[in-house]
Amino acid sequence: MKKTFLKNKKNIQFLIIGLGLIGGSVAKRLSKNGFEVLAIDKNKSHLKYAKKSKIIVGSSEKTDSAKKLFVIIALPPKILFSNFDKYLDFFHKAEFITDCTSVKGSLLNKIVKNKLESKFILSHPIAGSEKSGFLNSNEDLFKDKISIISKHKGLAISTLQKCKEFWFELGSKTHNLDPKLHDKIFSLTSHLPHVVAFSLISLFSKRKTSEYKKFIGGGLKDFTRIAESDPAMWENIFSLNKINLLKDISEIEKEINKIKTFILQDNGDKLEKHLKKIKKTKESFNR
Amino acid sequence: MKKTFLKNKKNIQFLIIGLGLIGGSVAKRLSKNGFEVLAIDKNKSHLKYAKKSKIIVGSSEKTDSAKKLFVIIALPPKILFSNFDKYLDFFHKAEFITDCTSVKGSLLNKIVKNKLESKFILSHPIAGSEKSGFLNSNEDLFKDKISIISKHKGLAISTLQKCKEFWFELGSKTHNLDPKLHDKIFSLTSHLPHVVAFSLISLFSKRKTSEYKKFIGGGLKDFTRIAESDPAMWENIFSLNKINLLKDISEIEKEINKIKTFILQDNGDKLEKHLKKIKKTKESFNR
Repeated sequence: MKKTFLKNKKNIQFLIIGLGLIGGSVAKRLSKNGFEVLAIDKNKSHLKYAKKSKIIVGSSEKTDSAKKLFVIIALPPKILFSNFDKYLDFFHKAEFITDCTSVKGSLLNKIVKNKLESKFILSHPIAGSEKSGFLNSNEDLFKDKISIISKHKGLAISTLQKCKEFWFELGSKTHNLDPKLHDKIFSLTSHLPHVVAFSLISLFSKRKTSEYKKFIGGGLKDFTRIAESDPAMWENIFSLNKINLLKDISEIEKEINKIKTFILQDNGDKLEKHLKKIKKTKESFNR
Repeated sequence: MKKTFLKNKKNIQFLIIGLGLIGGSVAKRLSKNGFEVLAIDKNKSHLKYAKKSKIIVGSSEKTDSAKKLFVIIALPPKILFSNFDKYLDFFHKAEFITDCTSVKGSLLNKIVKNKLESKFILSHPIAGSEKSGFLNSNEDLFKDKISIISKHKGLAISTLQKCKEFWFELGSKTHNLDPKLHDKIFSLTSHLPHVVAFSLISLFSKRKTSEYKKFIGGGLKDFTRIAESDPAMWENIFSLNKINLLKDISEIEKEINKIKTFILQDNGDKLEKHLKKIKKTKESFNR
């Protein structure tokens, strides 16, 4: 990709808000690539360590009005929401702002309300992990991943280009997706599977005996990775994508009930037919 | 393991009933280890191929009353049930019989009814796969896996020893588990996760658009492996473990409803607390 906006590294400061798994990984890659990186985080020892390791040059006091400020928000969605106004000064000074959250709709309202729609673009790197926190961050987290960019009305074309260059700098491809469709898709493909996985492990905990534990390999293990995800972040996501998610939960309840009814009625033929159809859908994923 | 019953290979014939993924893999390993293997299967071309490849020496016509007959049943549970009487002659002639099914309780009733409890022992190799059929079978399927053996009243001690030697011959360790507890444990750790995975993919199929398909990596992918499992076998398993499974389905419905209610009531604190507890359970799996 031909770089336009990220060409002159000396002229740019990146300010990362939130130095967790995502923010830490962004900071590590950018500093490695020769950019000046600043970071804000409530954990002072992480900031100190990051400065000592030359991942960042300092915190917000180091912003230099002679340079272009690129703000990357890497906070869990609800924390970003409740602290949005606190960072407004930086947002207004900034040349470019993006986030990394996995719920889009309600953030867009905040952006428009604060007249930031020209330079604030919604991003969602598909690089999450059941691991969380700065200590798990790494410079290659975004390598060969996809970052979703959600364009909206009023966005400057240059902001879109900056965002593409930013994710390219981190090693990712970008993919455009409407904010509302984004939230619908992720409700089904990510948020609902998390609800289900959390529920299965919760049920399991009620029977936890050493015997049960030995046999989780027969299916349950496939669900356990995502049930280890960060509880605070997932509470945030479930709440912020409430409308889509509640709809999807109701629909999965119906699907489970369908299989339950076939079993209850000893309707083996219909059950097998139903499972066959599902297997076909699954196989189409590989195409 | 010191071999007693499988020591004299010339003196033994193995008869495999059902030459699918499991039966085919048993046959391949046993013939490779120098045993004489016979097989029964409705698919004549698989039998022909297996004979040509020296995996088996023939079918049931080759049984030799001068040799000890070891019968290994590798049929889906319902097919075993409806054809049980058809194989009674072999069972009565046999020195040893075991199955490979993942539902135990109802099979035990059949065994007792036919006075086979002394030489018929229940086995369940934890070596399933989303792949099925003879073409996916391989001689190493059981290597380093666990096979569950369910002891019952009236079982001869020598039968237990034969069963251990048999699974050891295939490369597996054995683990003893009461038949009723077996069905309860596998309802939760395997059968219920399959119900849930099938349900998720079924819901997904209703929204299948090219956009949705691109983003299954965010959680849904973890569920998709088991939704590709053999529909006929899983219909069998769901039906035969009906009582345990219906109970577990009702409980997972309650668990999903619990999260749903927290979201609906905007009860973020309780939701986060609930997810934290679940994460701890999951982490205990690794210990």
